[in-house]
Amino acid sequence: MERVEQHASYGGRQEVWKHASTALSCDMKFGVFLPKAALRGERRPVLYWLSGLTCSEQNFITKAGAQEHAARHDLIVVVPDTSPRGQAVADDPAYNLGQGAGFYLNATHEPWAANYRMQDYVARELPALVEQNFPASERRGIFGHSMGGHGALVTALRNPGRYCSVSAFSPIVAPTQVPWGQKAFGAYLGEDREAWKTWDAVELVRMASERLPLLVDQGEADEFLAAQLRPELLKAACEAAGHPIELRMRPDYDHSYYFIASFLKDHFAHHSATLSV
Amino acid sequence: MERVEQHASYGGRQEVWKHASTALSCDMKFGVFLPKAALRGERRPVLYWLSGLTCSEQNFITKAGAQEHAARHDLIVVVPDTSPRGQAVADDPAYNLGQGAGFYLNATHEPWAANYRMQDYVARELPALVEQNFPASERRGIFGHSMGGHGALVTALRNPGRYCSVSAFSPIVAPTQVPWGQKAFGAYLGEDREAWKTWDAVELVRMASERLPLLVDQGEADEFLAAQLRPELLKAACEAAGHPIELRMRPDYDHSYYFIASFLKDHFAHHSATLSV
Repeated sequence: MERVEQHASYGGRQEVWKHASTALSCDMKFGVFLPKAALRGERRPVLYWLSGLTCSEQNFITKAGAQEHAARHDLIVVVPDTSPRGQAVADDPAYNLGQGAGFYLNATHEPWAANYRMQDYVARELPALVEQNFPASERRGIFGHSMGGHGALVTALRNPGRYCSVSAFSPIVAPTQVPWGQKAFGAYLGEDREAWKTWDAVELVRMASERLPLLVDQGEADEFLAAQLRPELLKAACEAAGHPIELRMRPDYDHSYYFIASFLKDHFAHHSATLSV
Repeated sequence: MERVEQHASYGGRQEVWKHASTALSCDMKFGVFLPKAALRGERRPVLYWLSGLTCSEQNFITKAGAQEHAARHDLIVVVPDTSPRGQAVADDPAYNLGQGAGFYLNATHEPWAANYRMQDYVARELPALVEQNFPASERRGIFGHSMGGHGALVTALRNPGRYCSVSAFSPIVAPTQVPWGQKAFGAYLGEDREAWKTWDAVELVRMASERLPLLVDQGEADEFLAAQLRPELLKAACEAAGHPIELRMRPDYDHSYYFIASFLKDHFAHHSATLSV
């Protein structure tokens, strides 16, 4: 591992690290915010943020204002990239497939299967790396935005017991039913639609063995709301399954980091209430 | 004027506008945050942010986390670009001269004199535009970073009575004594070093007719501290002149927006205490 950035921030430190990923067979970068308590060596819980289409590890750490909240709650925040990267990694010219668009799943179809194992990376390899190399406890929360909101919900629902808390901004809740998800799942997983369901939050919530409460914020002026996001499908599935969900519709807000920043404080409070006990 | 962006943010709205500038003879963009009170039509004070080398109107509005503080204090925040722009505007390949590096002065030498009149723009044209087109009162504060910290200090000191409050992060306090300033002033103002002094905060504070208190934050791990910024020169000049200054040296902090975000709350409190009375 090599540290490629470090900046003092809110009494803690925002860092960016680079390492060779085994799961993804390429070099990867991730952001890590270390609050003051962690810099003193105290083991602190870790909140994982998964970003949306086209993002790298930079978007959230530069635009969300997360360090203020992480410092207040003394939480470590880890931010991976959104896909494997590099010239040797399969790609597609579209913004919604290939590099920058890993969808947090393990691909089974070529040319993607060799590198696109983001689920193994975010749920296994990265937490192991973080817990070995930073003063991180094994209490984990996970949240994200858009494709990363999908990633957070699916990762928590597929791995009962691994996460203490989960939340999402503007998530793709039903990728098997919307164009972004159908295109990506068709490429990464092939045409077997039964296999797709194991990566779809609306499907997973129906058979969840653990009832981890879901917190979702969604802007009503989000240009992707009706075609790609459809949070009402998750709400209905949760209600049918008896799965706790709080879906907050926010008038006037769009899909941008201005929306995320405006309500991030609430999400940190949600995670900290469970992580910091 | 044409609105080119708008995003709901912290109960208010972050907008970006484009207009034809008379002072600069080119099209310019600026950011404006309107807090909830201003959206209701209530006249609110305006805080002007001047950015540093290479920045546009985007850096501060996306990276500083300013909207949270502006919303809490019900302040309008206006963020101009850092120079005139466009193919017809003189430029230089270096990052520290020409477009992105206007130094907030009125150039007197060619090829710069035709467009580089940023002082007229930020101190006169832009406030007039803002006060005509938004629910802005005539109470103004000004702050900025690095080249924009220089801009804020010089603009406040040159225009007694126009600003109620001023502050700076990591400002260039003595451009006539450091390489960045000497290069820019030589190009924009020519070799008459007496003329340079009217754009140098350390020189201006010696003859200030108004004793507006200066608040300055400076990171001690800032790579530009010793060669370009030298805040001790401003402190000494203020002490010699009896001009109030609070210079806060911040161990470990660098020159980035991570530093600005960490202490921006204090600067909003400083400005609001005077602006909101």
